Amino acid sequence: MKRGSNMPAVGTYNQTLVLDMIRRSPSGVSRIELAELTGLSAQTLSNVARRLTEADLIVEGERVVAGPGKPRTLLRLNRSARFAVGIHLDPSIDTFVVLDLSGSIVAHMETPPEDTDSTPDLIAALAESTNTLLRSADVPPDRVLGIGIAVPGPIDDATGMLLTPPLLPNWHHTRVRDLLSEATGLPVVVEKDVVAAMVGELWADADHALRDAALLYYGAGVGLGVAIDGDAVRGRTGNAGDIAHLLIDPSGPLCQCGQHGCLGVTVAPERLLLEAGVTASLDIPWGARRAAIDDLRTRAQDGDARSLAVCAHAAEVLARAIVLTNNMLDAGTFVIGGPVWSRLSEVLEPTLRALLPAIAQITTTRPLRLVEARLGTDLAAAGAACLVLDGAFTARASDLMISAS
Amino acid sequence: MKRGSNMPAVGTYNQTLVLDMIRRSPSGVSRIELAELTGLSAQTLSNVARRLTEADLIVEGERVVAGPGKPRTLLRLNRSARFAVGIHLDPSIDTFVVLDLSGSIVAHMETPPEDTDSTPDLIAALAESTNTLLRSADVPPDRVLGIGIAVPGPIDDATGMLLTPPLLPNWHHTRVRDLLSEATGLPVVVEKDVVAAMVGELWADADHALRDAALLYYGAGVGLGVAIDGDAVRGRTGNAGDIAHLLIDPSGPLCQCGQHGCLGVTVAPERLLLEAGVTASLDIPWGARRAAIDDLRTRAQDGDARSLAVCAHAAEVLARAIVLTNNMLDAGTFVIGGPVWSRLSEVLEPTLRALLPAIAQITTTRPLRLVEARLGTDLAAAGAACLVLDGAFTARASDLMISAS
Repeated sequence: MKRGSNMPAVGTYNQTLVLDMIRRSPSGVSRIELAELTGLSAQTLSNVARRLTEADLIVEGERVVAGPGKPRTLLRLNRSARFAVGIHLDPSIDTFVVLDLSGSIVAHMETPPEDTDSTPDLIAALAESTNTLLRSADVPPDRVLGIGIAVPGPIDDATGMLLTPPLLPNWHHTRVRDLLSEATGLPVVVEKDVVAAMVGELWADADHALRDAALLYYGAGVGLGVAIDGDAVRGRTGNAGDIAHLLIDPSGPLCQCGQHGCLGVTVAPERLLLEAGVTASLDIPWGARRAAIDDLRTRAQDGDARSLAVCAHAAEVLARAIVLTNNMLDAGTFVIGGPVWSRLSEVLEPTLRALLPAIAQITTTRPLRLVEARLGTDLAAAGAACLVLDGAFTARASDLMISAS
Repeated sequence: MKRGSNMPAVGTYNQTLVLDMIRRSPSGVSRIELAELTGLSAQTLSNVARRLTEADLIVEGERVVAGPGKPRTLLRLNRSARFAVGIHLDPSIDTFVVLDLSGSIVAHMETPPEDTDSTPDLIAALAESTNTLLRSADVPPDRVLGIGIAVPGPIDDATGMLLTPPLLPNWHHTRVRDLLSEATGLPVVVEKDVVAAMVGELWADADHALRDAALLYYGAGVGLGVAIDGDAVRGRTGNAGDIAHLLIDPSGPLCQCGQHGCLGVTVAPERLLLEAGVTASLDIPWGARRAAIDDLRTRAQDGDARSLAVCAHAAEVLARAIVLTNNMLDAGTFVIGGPVWSRLSEVLEPTLRALLPAIAQITTTRPLRLVEARLGTDLAAAGAACLVLDGAFTARASDLMISAS
């Protein structure tokens, strides 16, 4: 429900907006430029800049002489003013990162998933890894805003619970948000991996190139992130982004849904590895997957015909999925990333890019723009940390509304 | 790019918001209720209500005694304060409607499409129909805000031009926005039919049930409208909503894209009519289609096995399309409408609703809610008029931003 607006709401919004613009300007920005960008008066901007400086969120940088008149003082983000922890729970590896306020990764750790279905043990392991990482990075505890966790869906957004993610049986029906918050004393947010990834790419989108965009996430599964007008789309229940059953290749492998050639099953990494002859079975230990995927890439780069064919087919399937979803969303820009994509992009990306304009179903009126995810392999974990930063420091028009009492 | 906010922007926004709430309350709403809904102070609300009354946009209605204290005066929309024209260009029929400020259709006209590729003749015919309809409805010209036109895509949103909609060859590359505006002296907006339909359903969404929703449009083609946070998704180029090539039935008919069983070709009305034996060919004159579709419905209702099977299959294909798109968007609520749907809903809807929960690809965590389009057969035309009303009278957070000079 929309609400009215008043002056206190405007004050808070303007302050967040100015911080937003300063952090998206890595080389700094002057008060005069900010006035032009925001439309705010010089007086308002001076007040806002003073409050942000007092809160230690920004610092005054060098003075720049540009033409006649007073030199301009550049305002810069104090990147170490706040930090956030991001965790990505994945069947093959749990990733932990600490991000500073600029969205840069300042600490990184990977652990094999705990082999237990004991909820207390699972939570204790997450809490211990989090604390170890924060200590190792010398992050002052009072500057940590909270923890974001990215998980495969489905989730229950109201309770921050994982429901029944097929590849994470140990976590089924675990209230990870509340339990990890109790264990660490920090606020915790839980989101689907693709939503977190989209939020992460938006956080440091300096030129607002992704205000309307989609993100193809290629990891243990394939998913879609969607951004509309600068915000990630979460969906009614926080479970947007499931494209696993888009039917792409009717002559492809049988999916558990009963159809042949759904997107997810067709480009599942274990399927590619088997078809390329890298492995002899679909049942690959999670710990052995990274090396096997690297092996597939190397074989394709070395000209192995079977690996090349498998990669070409996977690239075509992904290209078709991009075309179908872009027809629906008219996003115009697709970010591609995720742990499997990062390992295979060198062999998938040229084919995918070449095929895209030739796919007969394409209905876009302008060429699709493809970009690599800024956050690379750590896309979901870093995105999870950005959920925390975004909640605290992104200027949203909804901040302009009087909050419900 | 986001902008700052200041008091004048807040004043305009609050006024539009209050009008928004009054028009979504058909039985009227008191100042005290508005204060609770919006969070605005009694003083601010009195000022806003006075300005809206002076502008003749609202009227004071009856006084209601509710418990102790002063009786409350209900504020109501003055529905006749403004009007908008909506036009839907379709291969089989051109529809013209006039809507009042409440979103109710006060005048309606249908004409067979002009059989010419002369742009001046096409535009002159639209202008003449518009003027005829406005005169017949006794709408004062100074109360007409403008004309909205809903068209099949693709469009060029920058120039308001139809590009190459396959079923409207006469209109290819016609700058309908500027030309119709010149011919009528009214502002004109052009949108894709599915976007217009979504805007129309949102305009009178009294209980905000559609803030996040999707709309399956079933007419000469099938398309998808999407609403996120109360706004219709237009896409980067205004061409969102193309789901024609979602692959649904690999054993289905050959699509022009080269695949078998794309959504669009599988449920194309001419295909259903041929398979049910209602017609003997796919090449049905546009003017004969409505009667033929009514015939298909009647046959199915009379228990004709072939017609029943065709309708059951079409319902299943539509259900699968809903599941696939909802998996992506997690919309939760689907509106279904459009001219073909309106004629067949009695025979499609029960099957579709029954099949939905049983489709194996479903990943929603709550039951999908299906609702019939409020605007019925005139969905696209009325939605087109709502584009005009929406542009003038929907409170948007972006109104709170200082406009770029």
